[in-house]
Amino acid sequence: ARAASTTTAPAAGAEVSLFAPLDSFARRHNNGPSENDEMLAAVGVKSIAELVDQTVPASIRAAAPLSVGAPQSETEALAKLKALASHNQLYQNHLGMGYAGTNTPLVILRNILENPGWYTQYTPYQAEIAQGRLESLLNFQTMVCDLTGLPVANASLLDEATAAAEAMSMCFAIAKRSKPVFLVASNIHPQTVGLLQTRAEGMGITVELADASNSALGEGLASRSDVCGVMLQYPATDGLVEDMSAVIDRAHTAGAKVVMATDLLALTLLKPPGELGADFALGNSQRFGVPMGYGGPHAAFFATKEAYKRQMPGRIIGVSRDAEGRPALRMAMQTREQHIRRDKATSNICTAQALLANMAAMYAVYHGPGGLTAIAARTAAQASVFADAARDMGLSVPPSGGFFDTVKVTMGSSVDVDSLRSALLGEKINVRYMEDGTSVAVAFDETHGQPEMEALLRAFAKATGKTAPSIDSLAASTSVDADQRRSVFGGLARTSPFLTHQIFNSMHTEHELLRYINRLQSKDLSLTHSMIALGSCTMKLNATAQMVPVTWPEICMPHPFAPPDQMQGYAAIFDDLRKDLADITGFHSVSLQPNSGAQGEFTGLLAIKKYHQSRGDHHRDICIIPTSAHGTNPASAKMCGMTIVPVGCDDLGNIDVAELRSKAEQYKDRLAALMVTYPSTHGVFEDSIKEVVDVIHDNGGQVYMDGANMNAQVGLCSPGEIGADVCHLNLHKTFCIPHGGGGPGMGPIGVAKQLTPFLPNHPLIDVKGTLGESAGVDGVELGPVSAAPFGSSAILPISYMYIKMMGTDGLREATENAILNANYMAKRLEGAYNILYRGSTGRVAHEFILDLRPFKSSCGIGETDVAKRLQDYGFHSPTMSWPVSGTLMVEPTESESKAELDRFCDAMLLIREEIRAVDEGRSDKLDNPLKNAPHTARKVMADKWEHPYSRDTAAFPASWTRDAKFWPTTSRVDDVYGDRNLVCTCPPMEAYMDDEKTAAGA
Amino acid sequence: ARAASTTTAPAAGAEVSLFAPLDSFARRHNNGPSENDEMLAAVGVKSIAELVDQTVPASIRAAAPLSVGAPQSETEALAKLKALASHNQLYQNHLGMGYAGTNTPLVILRNILENPGWYTQYTPYQAEIAQGRLESLLNFQTMVCDLTGLPVANASLLDEATAAAEAMSMCFAIAKRSKPVFLVASNIHPQTVGLLQTRAEGMGITVELADASNSALGEGLASRSDVCGVMLQYPATDGLVEDMSAVIDRAHTAGAKVVMATDLLALTLLKPPGELGADFALGNSQRFGVPMGYGGPHAAFFATKEAYKRQMPGRIIGVSRDAEGRPALRMAMQTREQHIRRDKATSNICTAQALLANMAAMYAVYHGPGGLTAIAARTAAQASVFADAARDMGLSVPPSGGFFDTVKVTMGSSVDVDSLRSALLGEKINVRYMEDGTSVAVAFDETHGQPEMEALLRAFAKATGKTAPSIDSLAASTSVDADQRRSVFGGLARTSPFLTHQIFNSMHTEHELLRYINRLQSKDLSLTHSMIALGSCTMKLNATAQMVPVTWPEICMPHPFAPPDQMQGYAAIFDDLRKDLADITGFHSVSLQPNSGAQGEFTGLLAIKKYHQSRGDHHRDICIIPTSAHGTNPASAKMCGMTIVPVGCDDLGNIDVAELRSKAEQYKDRLAALMVTYPSTHGVFEDSIKEVVDVIHDNGGQVYMDGANMNAQVGLCSPGEIGADVCHLNLHKTFCIPHGGGGPGMGPIGVAKQLTPFLPNHPLIDVKGTLGESAGVDGVELGPVSAAPFGSSAILPISYMYIKMMGTDGLREATENAILNANYMAKRLEGAYNILYRGSTGRVAHEFILDLRPFKSSCGIGETDVAKRLQDYGFHSPTMSWPVSGTLMVEPTESESKAELDRFCDAMLLIREEIRAVDEGRSDKLDNPLKNAPHTARKVMADKWEHPYSRDTAAFPASWTRDAKFWPTTSRVDDVYGDRNLVCTCPPMEAYMDDEKTAAGA
Repeated sequence: ARAASTTTAPAAGAEVSLFAPLDSFARRHNNGPSENDEMLAAVGVKSIAELVDQTVPASIRAAAPLSVGAPQSETEALAKLKALASHNQLYQNHLGMGYAGTNTPLVILRNILENPGWYTQYTPYQAEIAQGRLESLLNFQTMVCDLTGLPVANASLLDEATAAAEAMSMCFAIAKRSKPVFLVASNIHPQTVGLLQTRAEGMGITVELADASNSALGEGLASRSDVCGVMLQYPATDGLVEDMSAVIDRAHTAGAKVVMATDLLALTLLKPPGELGADFALGNSQRFGVPMGYGGPHAAFFATKEAYKRQMPGRIIGVSRDAEGRPALRMAMQTREQHIRRDKATSNICTAQALLANMAAMYAVYHGPGGLTAIAARTAAQASVFADAARDMGLSVPPSGGFFDTVKVTMGSSVDVDSLRSALLGEKINVRYMEDGTSVAVAFDETHGQPEMEALLRAFAKATGKTAPSIDSLAASTSVDADQRRSVFGGLARTSPFLTHQIFNSMHTEHELLRYINRLQSKDLSLTHSMIALGSCTMKLNATAQMVPVTWPEICMPHPFAPPDQMQGYAAIFDDLRKDLADITGFHSVSLQPNSGAQGEFTGLLAIKKYHQSRGDHHRDICIIPTSAHGTNPASAKMCGMTIVPVGCDDLGNIDVAELRSKAEQYKDRLAALMVTYPSTHGVFEDSIKEVVDVIHDNGGQVYMDGANMNAQVGLCSPGEIGADVCHLNLHKTFCIPHGGGGPGMGPIGVAKQLTPFLPNHPLIDVKGTLGESAGVDGVELGPVSAAPFGSSAILPISYMYIKMMGTDGLREATENAILNANYMAKRLEGAYNILYRGSTGRVAHEFILDLRPFKSSCGIGETDVAKRLQDYGFHSPTMSWPVSGTLMVEPTESESKAELDRFCDAMLLIREEIRAVDEGRSDKLDNPLKNAPHTARKVMADKWEHPYSRDTAAFPASWTRDAKFWPTTSRVDDVYGDRNLVCTCPPMEAYMDDEKTAAGA
Repeated sequence: ARAASTTTAPAAGAEVSLFAPLDSFARRHNNGPSENDEMLAAVGVKSIAELVDQTVPASIRAAAPLSVGAPQSETEALAKLKALASHNQLYQNHLGMGYAGTNTPLVILRNILENPGWYTQYTPYQAEIAQGRLESLLNFQTMVCDLTGLPVANASLLDEATAAAEAMSMCFAIAKRSKPVFLVASNIHPQTVGLLQTRAEGMGITVELADASNSALGEGLASRSDVCGVMLQYPATDGLVEDMSAVIDRAHTAGAKVVMATDLLALTLLKPPGELGADFALGNSQRFGVPMGYGGPHAAFFATKEAYKRQMPGRIIGVSRDAEGRPALRMAMQTREQHIRRDKATSNICTAQALLANMAAMYAVYHGPGGLTAIAARTAAQASVFADAARDMGLSVPPSGGFFDTVKVTMGSSVDVDSLRSALLGEKINVRYMEDGTSVAVAFDETHGQPEMEALLRAFAKATGKTAPSIDSLAASTSVDADQRRSVFGGLARTSPFLTHQIFNSMHTEHELLRYINRLQSKDLSLTHSMIALGSCTMKLNATAQMVPVTWPEICMPHPFAPPDQMQGYAAIFDDLRKDLADITGFHSVSLQPNSGAQGEFTGLLAIKKYHQSRGDHHRDICIIPTSAHGTNPASAKMCGMTIVPVGCDDLGNIDVAELRSKAEQYKDRLAALMVTYPSTHGVFEDSIKEVVDVIHDNGGQVYMDGANMNAQVGLCSPGEIGADVCHLNLHKTFCIPHGGGGPGMGPIGVAKQLTPFLPNHPLIDVKGTLGESAGVDGVELGPVSAAPFGSSAILPISYMYIKMMGTDGLREATENAILNANYMAKRLEGAYNILYRGSTGRVAHEFILDLRPFKSSCGIGETDVAKRLQDYGFHSPTMSWPVSGTLMVEPTESESKAELDRFCDAMLLIREEIRAVDEGRSDKLDNPLKNAPHTARKVMADKWEHPYSRDTAAFPASWTRDAKFWPTTSRVDDVYGDRNLVCTCPPMEAYMDDEKTAAGA
């Protein structure tokens, strides 16, 4: 046969065999062998093995391949995962505790949660190409402020329990760390209590539980001087709605702040926390259209008073103005988490749940105030019908007005909880069995209807031996009218309006919402447009096959506290994932609970701390951290109550081993841990790493390895083999969970054997897995670090699919390609820019730093100018000024083709010429394409154009922009103005109005 | 409670009750009551009932509400449909016959098939805002040309069988209708034979089957003078691969054309039809990534020689240039289906399968020539392994090289087919049982692997009593190398290259393909941007809940000829849908087989024809058609062999009843049918409709009602109650199947009781349903009109969901809203534009016509100028010059909010002022925003701007364009140039190259 060679070669990387499926994945993820050959030649090596040998020190190379095994094809992996997932049993859910069933509007499900245009963007640091999700997150903040009755809110935290911990930390800080007691009402969710206790320890706070048997919240409170904050839940965990104004007054008298966990849906009927006098309101926005997902991800909300806004943790979207004076949105107090105040930290929140906050905001936009109220009223009415029925069957329930959606039912002496449980399980119903052993709590939500009520009543009738009352007659006497439902709460009825902004009152049809979602999406640059070469952030392919399982009912519907025997599917998936992650990290065991990277750091350090405690080493409190570390490292150490000892770097950017040795020996008796990132934050495989590890171990410390750069290690080396004791993994980096425009993430940790007893547990679900973990040693154990036992469970299948589809070889090749791509780009750019750090053989790892400081000095062009100019070329900037100020850090990842790498390099080289023109005086120092970047369509098309360069240069600086131009929608956003004039709710529509008149109409 | 009113009203239309779900649909689809009140006031009526009374003649109003019943909520309807669908059993499939299993790349599934940005556009008539899908369809044509070896192809037909019928029609036309025989090899797919016979009858063609027992294809063929065409299948329906060059030569000697049905995947290994000398190649592109969907939708392909390109049916994408001389794509020989040549028609193809053609093209882009070849080679190798095994078990199979993917196995005397069937069913395997009763055909595809092979061999071993040979040893002796696999075909091996264009060789990773899909999508205006007020096309909401089931495995995976007892889910869904559609149309029964509106027309007329025949009325051949009818009406009548008698309209646009009566009486003995659209194509409910119907019935005719305008009837009146005998439904209009950027559609027909015996059947699956149909009367019956028994089955759930979620009231309200919206817009625009036709009370129906002819005369501004200028405002033009030249026809539908209607009206009013400026001499006659429209970003941003109006006027003529501007990507496309220089495959990349230099790179 004489077929031309182009027609016979299988698609890059496809190996054809008789039976192996051809929908193999690795070749769709990694760049292909033919591209690699060109790049290897450019880099100057003969093979990828040679490059890896030059890059990764021989001393740490993995002894054996990973045990992940052969790759599964896309179809195969999905089928196998589906088979596992089908072992999850979806019972009728009334468990409550901050998680509720919800009908996700399908227009939101498909066009946001399942849409790469919404889930692949990065956090909106580059405001000019992120106005879409910034607007949606501003809607979220507005919704939170309106419903809680507090004036400022952030754009989401990780979960309700960690939000509570952040509030506790703020209370402590507001009290200038002088009042050590945080008083917690015992009727808050048990997972929140557990997490507050975990967090309090390191901060030197005492969590004091105020349960029904003591009077901690009573009259005595007003005169206490040791209480920094009081935490209440409204409605309470058992559903009770009580007027807590008096407690709030007493707390304020005592100089304590009041934190109120609450439920946004309930607040459509109940007087909001702000009006009750609370200083903080927080909770979970999950029931606003976000599936429960066996615990997450969901967006927690957090609102406070004006006075505390500048201490508020997390990301806050604010209204500012752009270079042309028009309103523009941005992250206010921008990049706070990059500058996270190291050892001055009061928070180590470093991400948000942007994707889920967007869903919740869109849910409110779609339903509007009336629709939300209707859902609340119907839910409350069903709870009321159920309470009436239970009372009718001789059981004890709170009075009308004493609950919103959750009814606590106390069994009489004639009914025992076990027979009720058996009757309920017979109907496949889960309710909450209270700790007292004599009562249950039954929660209602918008997914419930008559069949669910009938099933519930059948079970209760069976257990009580009574006849259930007629639903029809109960229904006839129960109003679903919102005002009626409010009135049962008397003085606690909501009277203030909410969500009155036009945005919540104009998009109640699917067409309108679809177009709004699409309009916002079109303003945001994401991975669907171009590579996002953010150093340290690993913006790699988030493949469709990985995302598909997230919205399977078996994965996204379960309640996090469903009985484990119903969740055997998840259990099997988690066991398998933990084994693979343990293999990849070279560790003994893995915890899936931490739901962000910073959470993982905190958890890992706590495990180390507990380990030392279990050995009686209570005095070990020193954490050595190189100055090059990510800001979350010292912040996490601080959160654990450790004392930070910094270690410097040498001129090449490597850890100063001599200094390290000296410090380690100096603090030998107090040394708890070293935190080290590998490859380093400078993008280099430091040769000294084994020595560093040995120094720490020799001095009694444990080594915490920051896993942010695992993308350069997988399959080539591992933290465990290097000798580290614990490491977190950013599953949203190396393991393909998309960044979601600013979250969710996941930060599981792997630990060496000695630390396994100190992995976090959970008060409601025992999470000790199959890897031989014990729950503590000699009474020393670690409580929960996330609200849900397995963090954001619903996104774990993403990483699971990635690992299974890549297999042993694909994973290693991904790492090799990541290193090759970085070295190829460094080679292309090194003539034009100075590459700041390299390894001893001149190679970079999987990322590298471009030094722009010389241009700043010579002609005033800085990293921001380059970043903004890249937008005109259709690219998102690399990481700015981190880890070194005045630089850009580039990380291509393995899943970008050579063509895309070249396009980005072309842009950087063209920009270099633009800088040169300024430098050589051919361009004006202030009026040039860099300083004026980005250029909006409106600006370039204005009738007046008075710049010394052309419109064409402004808008179409490279050929590809003509074929498909991505337009920044605002000119450069003014950060200073925005921080000085913080506005974090939707401004009135007039603010956006154009001067131009529109059609008068007929 | 004193809650403000804005917070208590439920979302528009939501009725809150204790148990009824709140995710109700109608309020998300129809505009809301509060908007309606404003619009009613503007229109000048007190209630919608009053408006309807003024609009719809009392004489035809429905006597009773629909029986559809109460609406189901989104969640509820999906759950119920899922329960039904779960009764479909997915057996291992080896049925073949033009349908094969395929792995749809998930990046294509999610980002095209499940993406409203790709499925809600209209057919790309407005080329400047459709360059994305035009490029993709050009890729489709290029792929077809390359693989078939023929130089021109169209952008898809409905299915393989109708494509064959179109080829037959072309052969007949090329022979100037002088050669009546179309010779068909008997080894083509049985559904194709059946459909050819159905189609041939009306055209006066005789289909002569050339089966193995006669020598019709032998030496005698060369000397026949009555044969216009010869149809072959390659590989044949039973899988046989034969060299048919000699037959082709003989056919050509006889002056006949050769039509070859073929398989694109096979053509990566086999010499293509073009190289064998075939004049036409056609087939189904389904196995290129489009799920089988129980029959559809899929894109059929059609390719031919240069000589016949201007007679080719269907839509052809061509390369032309825009007003600035740059390359631009368009539909070549544009709007051919709107001008479909009435009674001169040789085709009544009026749509395409654009969405599916795009999927198939993207599949080729993703796999590239090497990937496709690998799939083909592996498939062929599996077939070969199976053949070897069957031979080993004593069964008779063709020699190596005698088949591609399908192996015909002939049982020996010791094995009977029934025991094989039983063994195969035991393994849940479907194969094809051949008509001869002694053989089966077993087809392979890319979804098969070792488990499937093992199951097959187990069943064969059980049936034969033999031991299956070892798969390992068979595999060891079977090569999957492409050249090896080609070589077994000897002289039939493919030697020519294919898919060498860069587009098929650069996007083999998911990131690259995702970005390509996104880049193309960003060029196309769809319903995700703005309303598309296309008169007669009913571009309404395609809701997510309706689209979700399409990609459920139970819906999209079945083979169309799977045994009916495995397809009980589909059967139940179809029964229910047919009942609802019968109810809505007021008819006795419904056929779901026709897969487009034009197909429905053709089928309805055939049913009438068969009815007359069954009564001995063979002479009834006159079809009366008003001159205002859609061009497909006379075309369909012509296809049925009817003689068309036109009837004129009066000055008000209504049918001239006197003329109708006179013609009907004149042709009383030959009268077969009247075709009438209602409300009329002029958008008016004609008062005379009942009289019209009576006149036809009184003269022995049947009344065919064109259902294009059913959106104005549903729930208010019905064709059946009006007295019509048959009507087709455009499910892609009134019943929410999205337009897919130019297909798919569905055109089921409803018929009165006397016509039910003449609904189409199918040679492989009996489709007579539960509504009491019999299969013909006295031997007169109707064969298949589509390749699949239920047309494009997989999209029928869209309409099903729509009907169930709307319920009786929602459907009626939709119609009322459609009428209200049209009358509201007509009211807003009537001061500025002349509304061409109205009913007797001054009301329009659900659409109306704006007359632009006065401006053409007064200042040279025509409908094209207005259409193109609307693009600058972010809108798609209404229907241009149909049904009246020089006009625009506007249909808002019920699913647009008042805000969107107003925005469109504002645009039209602003444009009216622009026209006025030209008319009054304030704007230049040739150099004005209308004549120069649309304005691309590139044009408006050019350094040079020499127009008398501003850049701002050009690009931002209305306020909303500043917030979110949709940019046309080319200037006005030159239709004449494109038709004169027809290029219908991808031009070399150089044609697109910019003059500007891009970065040289380092």
